[in-house]
Amino acid sequence: MIVVMQEGASEEQIQAVVRKLMELGFDVHRSTGALQTVLGGVGAKDDFDTRAVEMLDAVQEVHPVIAPYKLASRHFRPEGTVVDLGRGVTVGGNQVVMMAGPCSVESAEQMDAIAALVSRLGVRVMRGGAFKPRTSPYSFQGLGEKGLQIFRRIADQYGMLVVSEVMDQTQIPLMLEYVDVLQVGARNMQNYNLLRELGKVSKPVLLKRGIAATLEELLLSAEYIMSGGNYKVILCERGIRTFESATRNTLDVSAIPVVHKLSHLPIIADPSHATGRRDKVLPMARAAVAAGADGILVEVHQDPDKALSDGPQALFPEQFEQLMRQLHVIAAAVDRTLS
Amino acid sequence: MIVVMQEGASEEQIQAVVRKLMELGFDVHRSTGALQTVLGGVGAKDDFDTRAVEMLDAVQEVHPVIAPYKLASRHFRPEGTVVDLGRGVTVGGNQVVMMAGPCSVESAEQMDAIAALVSRLGVRVMRGGAFKPRTSPYSFQGLGEKGLQIFRRIADQYGMLVVSEVMDQTQIPLMLEYVDVLQVGARNMQNYNLLRELGKVSKPVLLKRGIAATLEELLLSAEYIMSGGNYKVILCERGIRTFESATRNTLDVSAIPVVHKLSHLPIIADPSHATGRRDKVLPMARAAVAAGADGILVEVHQDPDKALSDGPQALFPEQFEQLMRQLHVIAAAVDRTLS
Amino acid sequence: MIVVMQEGASEEQIQAVVRKLMELGFDVHRSTGALQTVLGGVGAKDDFDTRAVEMLDAVQEVHPVIAPYKLASRHFRPEGTVVDLGRGVTVGGNQVVMMAGPCSVESAEQMDAIAALVSRLGVRVMRGGAFKPRTSPYSFQGLGEKGLQIFRRIADQYGMLVVSEVMDQTQIPLMLEYVDVLQVGARNMQNYNLLRELGKVSKPVLLKRGIAATLEELLLSAEYIMSGGNYKVILCERGIRTFESATRNTLDVSAIPVVHKLSHLPIIADPSHATGRRDKVLPMARAAVAAGADGILVEVHQDPDKALSDGPQALFPEQFEQLMRQLHVIAAAVDRTLS
Amino acid sequence: MIVVMQEGASEEQIQAVVRKLMELGFDVHRSTGALQTVLGGVGAKDDFDTRAVEMLDAVQEVHPVIAPYKLASRHFRPEGTVVDLGRGVTVGGNQVVMMAGPCSVESAEQMDAIAALVSRLGVRVMRGGAFKPRTSPYSFQGLGEKGLQIFRRIADQYGMLVVSEVMDQTQIPLMLEYVDVLQVGARNMQNYNLLRELGKVSKPVLLKRGIAATLEELLLSAEYIMSGGNYKVILCERGIRTFESATRNTLDVSAIPVVHKLSHLPIIADPSHATGRRDKVLPMARAAVAAGADGILVEVHQDPDKALSDGPQALFPEQFEQLMRQLHVIAAAVDRTLS
Repeated sequence: MIVVMQEGASEEQIQAVVRKLMELGFDVHRSTGALQTVLGGVGAKDDFDTRAVEMLDAVQEVHPVIAPYKLASRHFRPEGTVVDLGRGVTVGGNQVVMMAGPCSVESAEQMDAIAALVSRLGVRVMRGGAFKPRTSPYSFQGLGEKGLQIFRRIADQYGMLVVSEVMDQTQIPLMLEYVDVLQVGARNMQNYNLLRELGKVSKPVLLKRGIAATLEELLLSAEYIMSGGNYKVILCERGIRTFESATRNTLDVSAIPVVHKLSHLPIIADPSHATGRRDKVLPMARAAVAAGADGILVEVHQDPDKALSDGPQALFPEQFEQLMRQLHVIAAAVDRTLS
Repeated sequence: MIVVMQEGASEEQIQAVVRKLMELGFDVHRSTGALQTVLGGVGAKDDFDTRAVEMLDAVQEVHPVIAPYKLASRHFRPEGTVVDLGRGVTVGGNQVVMMAGPCSVESAEQMDAIAALVSRLGVRVMRGGAFKPRTSPYSFQGLGEKGLQIFRRIADQYGMLVVSEVMDQTQIPLMLEYVDVLQVGARNMQNYNLLRELGKVSKPVLLKRGIAATLEELLLSAEYIMSGGNYKVILCERGIRTFESATRNTLDVSAIPVVHKLSHLPIIADPSHATGRRDKVLPMARAAVAAGADGILVEVHQDPDKALSDGPQALFPEQFEQLMRQLHVIAAAVDRTLS
Repeated sequence: MIVVMQEGASEEQIQAVVRKLMELGFDVHRSTGALQTVLGGVGAKDDFDTRAVEMLDAVQEVHPVIAPYKLASRHFRPEGTVVDLGRGVTVGGNQVVMMAGPCSVESAEQMDAIAALVSRLGVRVMRGGAFKPRTSPYSFQGLGEKGLQIFRRIADQYGMLVVSEVMDQTQIPLMLEYVDVLQVGARNMQNYNLLRELGKVSKPVLLKRGIAATLEELLLSAEYIMSGGNYKVILCERGIRTFESATRNTLDVSAIPVVHKLSHLPIIADPSHATGRRDKVLPMARAAVAAGADGILVEVHQDPDKALSDGPQALFPEQFEQLMRQLHVIAAAVDRTLS
Repeated sequence: MIVVMQEGASEEQIQAVVRKLMELGFDVHRSTGALQTVLGGVGAKDDFDTRAVEMLDAVQEVHPVIAPYKLASRHFRPEGTVVDLGRGVTVGGNQVVMMAGPCSVESAEQMDAIAALVSRLGVRVMRGGAFKPRTSPYSFQGLGEKGLQIFRRIADQYGMLVVSEVMDQTQIPLMLEYVDVLQVGARNMQNYNLLRELGKVSKPVLLKRGIAATLEELLLSAEYIMSGGNYKVILCERGIRTFESATRNTLDVSAIPVVHKLSHLPIIADPSHATGRRDKVLPMARAAVAAGADGILVEVHQDPDKALSDGPQALFPEQFEQLMRQLHVIAAAVDRTLS
């Protein structure tokens, strides 16, 4: 920890800070400049509230030195993490992994039609929700376990993997019966009871960034899962809330290179929820791959006008085909392949 | 619903929109102006995704007309809601209600010291956490049920009411044994499984605004609780996330008059979490009461430097006394009394 | 304009709104639904403050129908605008136009070295500042007219075009002697005296989005210029201010497809100012082209470590070469060519 | 400057950073901890781009130590600045100063009516715009010099002081003939040519915070003015842009105590522009005074429905009277008097 004293801080004030740091278990190094004194507290405390020092007299600024996450930091695994989803699909390596499907599982017919479409184009991972968190209590809430059964059966027919959202810790055992990847939604990014339990499972977790979460907070949520022993975490950028209302959220494309620098975990992008409109999904999916995303989570529906939820952001089949063609070229521009 | 067509929209395009609206169950009224046509869809659908119309050709804008919440709207109870907490304390009437206490319940000695302090100054409601949601997995997580036991016992000794946070729906039965008001934290404002279960209890719920939640979303979360039958909802402004980093969050004081206009529910403010520093708590608590808040939720500790969590934002006893003195005067300026 | 009355609005209140609308020159259409009445005001007023109606009794919402900008709207020129910069370079057509150069013009040697580098790679437009708006009064403020002289001379030697920033309206005559495109910085996006004067010149204007400007406000600023007669406006996304501090600003890549839908004006992206760090410039430049940007404005320096301003965001020569290689491929993926 | 090296940084990497710091003129102190090395660079460089060090290998974080503003910092004048406006009115002392008047000067009759109203209630400073920055090029742009003449004449009749906005540096000489305080609007907060020229005048400057400006940036803009020799700067909080759209902007009430800690300059609040609606002006004006504001800038009009600009945010005369009554009580609660 670094403590910068105000100009003109008295020796007494400086000594009070030194004492406080020593009380807290830090070794203290002091640098006295022409104008200001700087104190360096060296030590390795896990959980330290810097405000306790900030409030002391004549303290100008306090900077924690140790990143608040460890297991999620790039330093922990400089070579990067490759998450194995099963059936030979990995995220975080050379492949850019497409994860496509409807917002909600609606019926076997729907899932079959979509699985046929996307698997024909080479997609190996299918998305779809059985439990839907909805802003309004009066909206469609998903098919529940029946939806999971349909999803698993259809996915197996096409040799695909299943990604679906878990809404709280009580649902984990049920989800584990049916899905290959457990998705944590943006609103649950800081549901710590859920994260803690996911640390104990052996299947991969797809952790979405909250709409107002900093990347540091996203990595701290990953740390919750990892500190329980489950290192198979895939991060997902899905748009942040800004002042701009022309799109539902603002896809923070720069999160991709930033996370790649700070962490060893793979990061994918969800352009469907970020923009909320299918005509913005193609450009933003292309942008994410161009920026280095390890995968794309995208909504596609065989008949979006009839979708029970989020139809307006689902791609039409022909749009999805066009997107796949474009992404093959863009992946090549950054020395990767699309799958 | 109002649909504004683009300038130059063809008759065919307009008819396509009219057909879609009728399919969706709306009566359609058409206004043809010199430059643009406007279609009014009248009807009372509960859950309608306006994007389904927005995506049609030549549609410029779509505005939903019906507020997405009903039970929480001012129109539902123009006279306002007064929530009875028990022991004669009500929120939403003439009184500005103080709810004071530590961040976490730490020990019987601590709770006794704080209860003695705040009750002597006239405070009737005590706050304190037994389960703590913490950003880092390595931080103090609260005393759990043992903390609730201590809290209840001390509160009863001083004739005070208990407010404490419930972290997920599995904790509700336990909380109901000990607390008078169940607090929903900012990170849980859209934990719909929790909200739905709280709709079934008969005790009041204190619902905190998420750090990136709009006021409409806050009212929709209240609607989740109310739609289950529990109308005893108290809203709480606790700071939003903005670009400014000089304070932890930005207390949105204007949320107070805005909510009073949109909704009949009472709204209080939490200046401790919003600012994160005790030297900013006094001015912001004063500001909230001056703006019309129905109560203040504030952290105070008999020895903040020794607090196990959030000590830097807890008021010292003498600061709390000063705050009470100032708030009595300010409450009078807006024709209310402090309790 | 659409006025939505509250549920339960009285006939008297509705009539008061009708009268107000007629006073303001609107034809009024009334739709009476089961729960609510909607009034449509049709007319073509240029400048109308909707709050005058919002404040009336029992008014729930007011929506303006006519977009506040006209000349900048897509409807005005559905086919899109191609801005001719001279020497055969156009922005807004099939080409993705690179505009590269240093932050500041520092010396003839510097400009010569950079021009040689970028023109060799096919770049036809060079950027560089002679007047620098700096956050601190103690920073380097640019070479002024001497810088412009150097810039013009070197650009002519290499057959390149000159883009440089104009800081206020008094500088316009001077700038016109030297530059091909007048750049308006983000901080000046709403300097209306400057915009008005730029409406009278015949050279193209490169208008940067303010860091907190909505896209509607950006288009209104373009309207200021266009309403004076100068239709050669190129918009530029350069990052917006959000709560995330991992990058200097957040490049709003989605602004590109949104502007292409709302307006006929071309839009380019500036990844250098958005991110503030050269290691983020490549991924974000690629993302912008993948999303459909009409050009890229990027900082490159022959020796970034010695740059007098913004060196950390300037690309090294070899990075710039790599970027050009990647962008050629990505431009092809969206059926365009790079120049 | 403090440089935190990554865990595992090599001795060679550390030495490279040390060399760079010394090149830049810093004395270097080194702290070697169990996990990480921290380097302290002591010196007093005015203008240093920390990114030059951030980009070096194995650097984790860089923190500047010296506040980027000096003259505006609290340390420069710990006792605080009291700005003398003339006629015995001072801002920054014990008085909370009301500055009231219309958005725009419209006519002598209007100004006379408003001056009579506000001066009767004890107000000594009148606001009003002669040049209006408007988002749309089609809106009323103000009366110009004729407006200033009217304003001065009426103000003198009532013994009041004049505050009015200067839009660019070319208008300064004209403004100085008529006004007592030169107001810089939010959009011009970083118009450096304007700020620099205002540093040369001897009249007080009222500097409004930009809607997306941090408080550090606001103080840096004050520094621009002060570095030219004019120390009579009054800051003004007028709302920031956030994701919440229920109010036009979000009045950042916490800016008031934050600025009082960081700087010696007085700070007032403008609730009219922040909220954009008169029904929110009273609660927010009260909140600002309760939080410690040194004054309030508020719009009032004798007939708001007929105002040529911003009528919906102007108070009716009876509302203004009510506000004055409430503010007298609240000022007393914080040991101040209202004038």
